[in-house]
Amino acid sequence: MDLFNFRDGELCCEDVPVADIAHQVGTPAYIYSGNTLAEHFRRLANAFAAADPVICYSIKSCANLGILRLLADRGAGVDVVSGGELHRARLAGVSGSKVVYAGVGKTDAEVREALTYSARSASGQGIGQFVLETPAERDHIAAVARAIGIAGHASLRINPEVQRRAPELTIASETVAAAFKQDIEHAERFFEHCGHNEFCKLDGLHIHFGSQIDQVEPCASALRAVIGLIERLSQAGHTINTLHLAGGLGVDVDAAVAPTPADYAEHLLPLLQPLVDDGLSLILEPGRTIAAGAGVLVTSVQYIRRDGATQYIVVDAGMHTLLRPALYDARHFVWPVQVAPMHVPHDRAPDQDMPGLDTADVVGPISESADFLARGRKLPPVARDDLLAVFDCGAYGSALSARYTTRPLPPEVLVDGSTATVVREPETYENLLSCELKARKLDTQRRVSFS
Amino acid sequence: MDLFNFRDGELCCEDVPVADIAHQVGTPAYIYSGNTLAEHFRRLANAFAAADPVICYSIKSCANLGILRLLADRGAGVDVVSGGELHRARLAGVSGSKVVYAGVGKTDAEVREALTYSARSASGQGIGQFVLETPAERDHIAAVARAIGIAGHASLRINPEVQRRAPELTIASETVAAAFKQDIEHAERFFEHCGHNEFCKLDGLHIHFGSQIDQVEPCASALRAVIGLIERLSQAGHTINTLHLAGGLGVDVDAAVAPTPADYAEHLLPLLQPLVDDGLSLILEPGRTIAAGAGVLVTSVQYIRRDGATQYIVVDAGMHTLLRPALYDARHFVWPVQVAPMHVPHDRAPDQDMPGLDTADVVGPISESADFLARGRKLPPVARDDLLAVFDCGAYGSALSARYTTRPLPPEVLVDGSTATVVREPETYENLLSCELKARKLDTQRRVSFS
Repeated sequence: MDLFNFRDGELCCEDVPVADIAHQVGTPAYIYSGNTLAEHFRRLANAFAAADPVICYSIKSCANLGILRLLADRGAGVDVVSGGELHRARLAGVSGSKVVYAGVGKTDAEVREALTYSARSASGQGIGQFVLETPAERDHIAAVARAIGIAGHASLRINPEVQRRAPELTIASETVAAAFKQDIEHAERFFEHCGHNEFCKLDGLHIHFGSQIDQVEPCASALRAVIGLIERLSQAGHTINTLHLAGGLGVDVDAAVAPTPADYAEHLLPLLQPLVDDGLSLILEPGRTIAAGAGVLVTSVQYIRRDGATQYIVVDAGMHTLLRPALYDARHFVWPVQVAPMHVPHDRAPDQDMPGLDTADVVGPISESADFLARGRKLPPVARDDLLAVFDCGAYGSALSARYTTRPLPPEVLVDGSTATVVREPETYENLLSCELKARKLDTQRRVSFS
Repeated sequence: MDLFNFRDGELCCEDVPVADIAHQVGTPAYIYSGNTLAEHFRRLANAFAAADPVICYSIKSCANLGILRLLADRGAGVDVVSGGELHRARLAGVSGSKVVYAGVGKTDAEVREALTYSARSASGQGIGQFVLETPAERDHIAAVARAIGIAGHASLRINPEVQRRAPELTIASETVAAAFKQDIEHAERFFEHCGHNEFCKLDGLHIHFGSQIDQVEPCASALRAVIGLIERLSQAGHTINTLHLAGGLGVDVDAAVAPTPADYAEHLLPLLQPLVDDGLSLILEPGRTIAAGAGVLVTSVQYIRRDGATQYIVVDAGMHTLLRPALYDARHFVWPVQVAPMHVPHDRAPDQDMPGLDTADVVGPISESADFLARGRKLPPVARDDLLAVFDCGAYGSALSARYTTRPLPPEVLVDGSTATVVREPETYENLLSCELKARKLDTQRRVSFS
C-alpha cells in the first residue's frame, strides 16, 4: 500500500499535491509519504506482535535523517552497513540495543564506532549486534574490542538463499534439508571454532531469505532448519540469544503477488514462539520493503525531441538522480503529475494502455546511453515544464544518487497528512565544492630509492 | 602515456610513492598525475598547433577544481554540460570565450548562467559557444537571451557516428557520403529555419566522432562532408565561424591501438587549414582522453574470504567509489601497490600471467552483486591492509562516485613531480549531513478540491 493517489487528475502525496511541493523546492526532488512508511512498519509490528520483535529499518535503502527519526520515534531499530550509517542512527536517536551492524568490509575504525555507539547520552553503550560471516571478521571485532575494553555481541549470518533455491525448495521438504545442509554444517563448525570469545560474543544467528521472496513456505522450511541448528548448538554449549530474519517480509512493491506480513507471521510465528518464550530476541530486517513504495521522484520536462522513430522526453532527473533503471534494469512506473480525467492510471503497471498515449523514452540531461529513467513507455501528451512522477523510488532512489556532472543532490520532502517538510535541502554550488576549495600539501620526504 | 610506474616494486605517481599518499589521506583515494594531464594536453596542442585550436577539457570526465586550474593555466578551455560545471569553470579562471556548453537538457537558469558567465572579473561576458541539437533548444536560448539582453552564440551538433558506422565507412568514400547524407541534409534545413536569430546566433558546427575511435580515415571522411556543408551554408548566407571536433582524438587508454594526436593532425589539418586561414576558429573536445590515464584509485584490503571455489578480496572502495565496472562492464587493471620484483607488471592488461598468482574477485564493502571492481583476476598474494591500485580511473572514476551507504566521497590528490597536494579533502560526516540538519515546513495551503 501507499498514499500516493490521483485526485481530480492531480497526484497527491497524502493530502498534498505533488506539484505544490515541486514548485517550492524545485526539481528533481524526492517526496516521501510519512504515513506510508509508518504503516509499512506498523503492519510488520502488528503481524509479529506476539514475538515482540525489534524491526530494523535498512538505512542503506533510504538514509534520510527525517525518515530515520520518524521510524525511530515509532520504536524501530536500524540495520546499518557503515560508520556513516551508525552516525545517522545516533543522530536519529536510535538506542544502541536496536542497532544491527552488517556488511562484509567493516574497518577497524567502524568497529570502534560501533562498540562505543551511544545515542542521546554520553555514557558508552555499544550496538546490539554485529552480523558477521567469516572467522577473520570475528577476529578483527574481538581485537578492536579487546583494545578498548568493550565487548561486542555478534550473530553469524547464514544464507539459505531461499530466493535462488525457491523453485527446488517448493518441491519437497527433503530438498530443503539437502539445500541447507551445507550452510548448517558450516555454521556448526563456525561456532565450534569461534563460538567462545569474551570480546566478540557469538550469540546470534542471522538468516537472510533473499530480497524478493514471493512464497512463505520456503522461508518456513529454512527457519525449521535453523531452529534445529539452534537446538544442536545449545546442546554443544552455545547460547543463541538473538535470531535475525532478514529479507523480503511482505511489504513489497508488487502487492498483488507478495505475501503480506500477516502471511509470514502465520507461518513463522508458530515455529518461533517456543524460542521466544524461552527468551530468544527476534529481530526483523525487512530491507527495502519499508521504504520502496513510500517515495516518488518528481522531475520536470525540459525538451521533447524526435530522433527518427523515437520520441525522447528530456527531463531534469537522470542517472545521477535515479540509477536503478541503468544499473539494475529496474522498470519504474512513470506518469505525469497532472493529467486529464481519461488519463488517470488505475494501477502502476509500467506499460499502460489508454487512448491518446504516445510512446517515448524518458531520458536525463547527461547525453549518454545510461542516462534514462524509462524506455518505450506509452504516456499522455506532455509539454515543457510539465512534471512527471517516477513511482516506487523510496528505496535505492536517493540512496544511489550522485553529483555526476556537478549536479546538486536533489532535495527530499517528507509529507505527513497535509504537512510537507523539507528534510534535505537542495544542495548549493557551495555544498558541492566545499571539500575542494583549499589545497593542502602532503609530506613526500620519503623517496623510493632507485637501484 | 602516463607517469604511474613501479620503482623497486613500489607504485609511484611521478616521483611520489602511492603508498605514502594513501597513508596520509586514507583510502579509498583518487590520485592524479598532473604532468600526465599536462602532457596529454600538450600533445594535442602541439599536433594541431598550426590551426591554433582551443582545446576544451571535458569537466564531466573529472571535475576536480585542482585539475581544472592546472589545465586552465596551460591555456585549456572547457566543455561543460551543466550549471555546476559552468560554476567550476568560473572558479578555475577559464575565460568565457573558451567555454563550450553542450548537453540536451539545459534549463533556463543554466542558460542564464552561461550568458552571464564571467571569470575573474565583474564585467558580464558570456560563454563562447552553446552546442545545440534541436530548434526547441535554439528557441529557449534565444528567449532567455532576449529577456536579459545578452546574445549568445551556438553551434549545431551533427553526429557522424563514426564509431558505429566505422566498419562501413572504411569500405569506400561513397559509403561515407551516403551515411552522412541525412545528417548533412538535416543540418542544412536546420540552418534554413533557425539560422537567423539575433539572440541565438547560429554560427558554428559541432562534429562528434564518437568516444573510442581507432581509425583516423573515417574522421577525415566525416570532416570532408562537413567542409562541403560549410561551403554550401556559406553560399546560402550563413557564416560558420567555429568548428568543433569532438570525441576520441588519440590520447586514449589503450595506446597500442589508438592513433596518436599526430596521426589525427596529419589527416585532418590539411583539410582544416584553408578554413582556418579564412578565419574559422577550431575547437577540439577530446572528451575522456585527457584524464582517463592520468588517475588511479587506491584502496585497502579489508578481508580475504573464500566462498566455495571463489576467493574474494574485500576492499574499502566499491561501486560507490568506482561505478564503471558495474555500470559499463569496464575492465580496469588492478594490482597491489607494493609487490615482489617477480610481480612487477610489464603492461596494464587486466589478465596477467606470472608465477605465484591467485585468482580472485575484488569486491567492495556493500554486499551486493553490483559492488565489485574486478572479477576473476590473477593477482599476487595480498593480506589485510595491503593497498591495491585500480588503473586508468582518471575519467568517470571520481566523477561518478556517490555517497551510497553514507560513505564519504573519497579524497583526491594531485601530484606534480615530487609534490603531492590534496585537491579534495575526504568528506566528514558533517559534510554528508549538512543539508539534512534543519527541517523546513512548506506552504501547503492550496488543497485539491474533492469533486
